[in-house]
Amino acid sequence: MIIRIVAGGPETELPILKKDPDAGEQWIGVDRGAFFLLERGIVPDKAFGDFDSITEEEWNRIAAAVPDHVQFPAEKDETDLEIALNHAIKQKPEMIFIYGVTGGRLDHFFGAVTLLLKKELTCSVVIVDRQNELSVYSPGEAVLAQKKQWPYVSFFALNQEVEGLTLSGFKYPLHDYTVQLGSSRCVSNEIIEKKGVFSFRSGILMVIRSRDGRRSL
Amino acid sequence: MIIRIVAGGPETELPILKKDPDAGEQWIGVDRGAFFLLERGIVPDKAFGDFDSITEEEWNRIAAAVPDHVQFPAEKDETDLEIALNHAIKQKPEMIFIYGVTGGRLDHFFGAVTLLLKKELTCSVVIVDRQNELSVYSPGEAVLAQKKQWPYVSFFALNQEVEGLTLSGFKYPLHDYTVQLGSSRCVSNEIIEKKGVFSFRSGILMVIRSRDGRRSL
Repeated sequence: MIIRIVAGGPETELPILKKDPDAGEQWIGVDRGAFFLLERGIVPDKAFGDFDSITEEEWNRIAAAVPDHVQFPAEKDETDLEIALNHAIKQKPEMIFIYGVTGGRLDHFFGAVTLLLKKELTCSVVIVDRQNELSVYSPGEAVLAQKKQWPYVSFFALNQEVEGLTLSGFKYPLHDYTVQLGSSRCVSNEIIEKKGVFSFRSGILMVIRSRDGRRSL
Repeated sequence: MIIRIVAGGPETELPILKKDPDAGEQWIGVDRGAFFLLERGIVPDKAFGDFDSITEEEWNRIAAAVPDHVQFPAEKDETDLEIALNHAIKQKPEMIFIYGVTGGRLDHFFGAVTLLLKKELTCSVVIVDRQNELSVYSPGEAVLAQKKQWPYVSFFALNQEVEGLTLSGFKYPLHDYTVQLGSSRCVSNEIIEKKGVFSFRSGILMVIRSRDGRRSL
């Protein structure tokens, strides 16, 4: 089962969101994200938030359409997104996608990125917007299928250093390379075979798959 | 002297850019950023880039208006922004502002953030867009003036942990707090006195000042 969480960042950054009725997926709306889902004909299975950034009309629509909505006070220890993610983790999904956290306040964005580092995570969590897919990996090996919609693959160290990064199937292969925090040497690589394989021994690796926007083509 | 570097990220994310003729500031355009400056009536002192993401018409306009333009091949070790920043550092400015690196490809954005960690930096470098000011600090003490346009102040550890964070003049003060990588506990604070003072003993601290966008108000 896949869970898709849509938060309330700028709507312009959202990729196309479509419900697959056969996929057994769950949709969760956070704050204005719940409204974005309704606008796309998707009734969220659950809505979380303080809902202090939406109009009364939008709130009424969410409250009427989503039986399972939970409103929180604006001031609390966890963010609305974190509460939604904790709920998602408890469902034991195979994968969680997070939308609507880019393009606005960078503290909100970094707040979302830090959630990918939660120790409680037992599945992949991917942040997606219309130009990017961002995920975080622990040491080991992983395989990325070549995808035309994501031509670029970039690697960043999220902690002090990532040791032993080895890439195969990429335009710029690497063998046992150390990625330092603050290095942009592993940016804008491309998968040139059917699959790109990467592995590393230690550290926390952030992987970003991206594409150019319409404006810059 | 202040240097302002404008890169070619989505134009919608740029704050208002105005030249202050008395400020002795230098403007540098990177790729499409040089064109964004011309569009705002600001002739960059220098333009860098591979310029492979702009139209021929835009390129002709840059080449004609900016005598000091340098074109690089698209494939090279450093990014265009890094080349521009290295040039800026050599001018020994008091401060460098970077615009046009948010809102598009996240690998470009994180590439810009990693530049703030360069050891060669001898002055503050701040990434600015219409909703955020992002900067990185080494251990010590710093003072932030209260600014109405930036109501929120957030702190993140960019390495494994930031030790001894102490905040005064803030809505949520802290004393000798350890910010772990992956913690969002220091998000959305506010300066409630004329100045907010923060200090820390070890680690790399990212500070984001932000405001809500028009859409979410």
